[in-house]
Amino acid sequence: MPELNVIREKTLMREWSRARRYQGETVALVPTMGFLHEGHLSLIRTAKSVANFIVVSIYVNPGQFAPSEDLSTYPSDLVGDLRKLSDAGVDAVFCPADLYLSASGDDSARHSGDAVSQSEGNSCVEDGNRDHETWVRVEKLEKGMCGASRPVFFRGVATVVAKLFNIVEPDIAVFGKKDYQQWRVICRMVRDLDFDIRIIGADIVREFDGLAMSSRNVHLSPLDREKALSIYESLRKAKVAVEGGQRNCQELIALTKKTISEAGGKIDYVEIVEQQSLKTAEEIVCPVVLCVAAWFGNVRLIDNIELNI
Amino acid sequence: MPELNVIREKTLMREWSRARRYQGETVALVPTMGFLHEGHLSLIRTAKSVANFIVVSIYVNPGQFAPSEDLSTYPSDLVGDLRKLSDAGVDAVFCPADLYLSASGDDSARHSGDAVSQSEGNSCVEDGNRDHETWVRVEKLEKGMCGASRPVFFRGVATVVAKLFNIVEPDIAVFGKKDYQQWRVICRMVRDLDFDIRIIGADIVREFDGLAMSSRNVHLSPLDREKALSIYESLRKAKVAVEGGQRNCQELIALTKKTISEAGGKIDYVEIVEQQSLKTAEEIVCPVVLCVAAWFGNVRLIDNIELNI
Repeated sequence: MPELNVIREKTLMREWSRARRYQGETVALVPTMGFLHEGHLSLIRTAKSVANFIVVSIYVNPGQFAPSEDLSTYPSDLVGDLRKLSDAGVDAVFCPADLYLSASGDDSARHSGDAVSQSEGNSCVEDGNRDHETWVRVEKLEKGMCGASRPVFFRGVATVVAKLFNIVEPDIAVFGKKDYQQWRVICRMVRDLDFDIRIIGADIVREFDGLAMSSRNVHLSPLDREKALSIYESLRKAKVAVEGGQRNCQELIALTKKTISEAGGKIDYVEIVEQQSLKTAEEIVCPVVLCVAAWFGNVRLIDNIELNI
Repeated sequence: MPELNVIREKTLMREWSRARRYQGETVALVPTMGFLHEGHLSLIRTAKSVANFIVVSIYVNPGQFAPSEDLSTYPSDLVGDLRKLSDAGVDAVFCPADLYLSASGDDSARHSGDAVSQSEGNSCVEDGNRDHETWVRVEKLEKGMCGASRPVFFRGVATVVAKLFNIVEPDIAVFGKKDYQQWRVICRMVRDLDFDIRIIGADIVREFDGLAMSSRNVHLSPLDREKALSIYESLRKAKVAVEGGQRNCQELIALTKKTISEAGGKIDYVEIVEQQSLKTAEEIVCPVVLCVAAWFGNVRLIDNIELNI
């Protein structure tokens, strides 16, 4: 079992990675927000199959949470996470304190906020009086689905991933396809900004009963957890309908919404979009993905299923 | 005299740079839009004083031009540029054809434009039906001064520089302080996105008579070129006034505007801002910079002077 290096400083993380890459080894990064479950471990196994060294980052990114969202209650368990990562044969864990605080001592910059107008949307980064002001915007892909109900979300995701890429400098990075739109946003960012990093999308991992694994599942009451099974049930019903010849997206969406609503879920969105562009599909004439976001109690869950005809 | 490598492909450029960096050598990048003058050569000399290998990029970036601006008439002279770079002892020139076209063959992405709403401002990249959609926004620093009259400018600058950084992967990059706001935008982007690149700001180089060197100077008529000397004259007058005890920025700005207007220049802006934050100053109580943009005929010129008390 290799030793698990726990690294908290950006510069030490970069040095660790470069020491390996400059010798011709490959490094894969698995970015996470911690509270690790079998879904994360699956990403790590994927990473291990394609790279010599594995870095897992654990960082609950305030840049992707609006002040109204659940940053403060996002679950964490660092001790448990480190044990799981050690058991999984991970080489390094990057768990920084705050990625948005500058170490430059550039004090005058801290006063720049009132010089010009406010940005259109605020995350917990702006809310916290940090002086970070650079954001990566994937302007089209960021807008629909989760971006519609969480306006600062993908701006925050793309930005923190760009930061992690510049700190870890990996050859490969692995993202879960449960966060389908996130995966596509990252792919597009990597292509558009010329990061020399191969992005791998890994399949969704589900509980024994079909619920997609998520750190937020822990917040579900037993009753809501039961109701939440309707999400995967609705996705499977849609897949069966498509296999039976259904091509009309409105009807598939109605079927999906009905299944979830009848179980007691509150729909955020149900959409069928093209797999690469995330463009809304009317009829299924190319590979699409059916994406769902719904609330059960105070917990917002997302899930999806690729429909390849 | 070392051989000048002319590199057109992203992957070859990155390989060239890595081959040197992985052996412990340092690489400095000097990004330019070509039509090189003594100002650029000064940046190259600065780069040579701090790094073992020098890369100069020549790329007229459509991402920083609005369709109404002078992209099509921006001057170029690649043959002359290569001779100057060879004479200057530059090691590699990166002159890509189009940095916004993807080589991925990701055709479905080309249709994503109509899926969601348009971006707030358009550059010549969107205008040209490329499918690039990722932009780096330095949200506060990008808004004032040149950003007010050129809304897509700093978005385009930050984005293309991020791309160049990811392609060349330099240790150091050198920017001219004539483009003062641009230099600060890049510094902030590097800090906020954790690029491991040292940014050097190099002093303005002037013609014998004080006109700041600029590729656009070639478009000035002889009469307008004479009138344009009023810019540096106005900056020097303001500096003398500050040395004489003047601390009121409105009065200094009025003095500056008067000098340029009386010579026949059309003011775009005259501002006095703090050097780091670019926050508007009312009284000079810390290091500031007096920034000017003005039109002479069809040519927009910028210049500035640091005022350190």
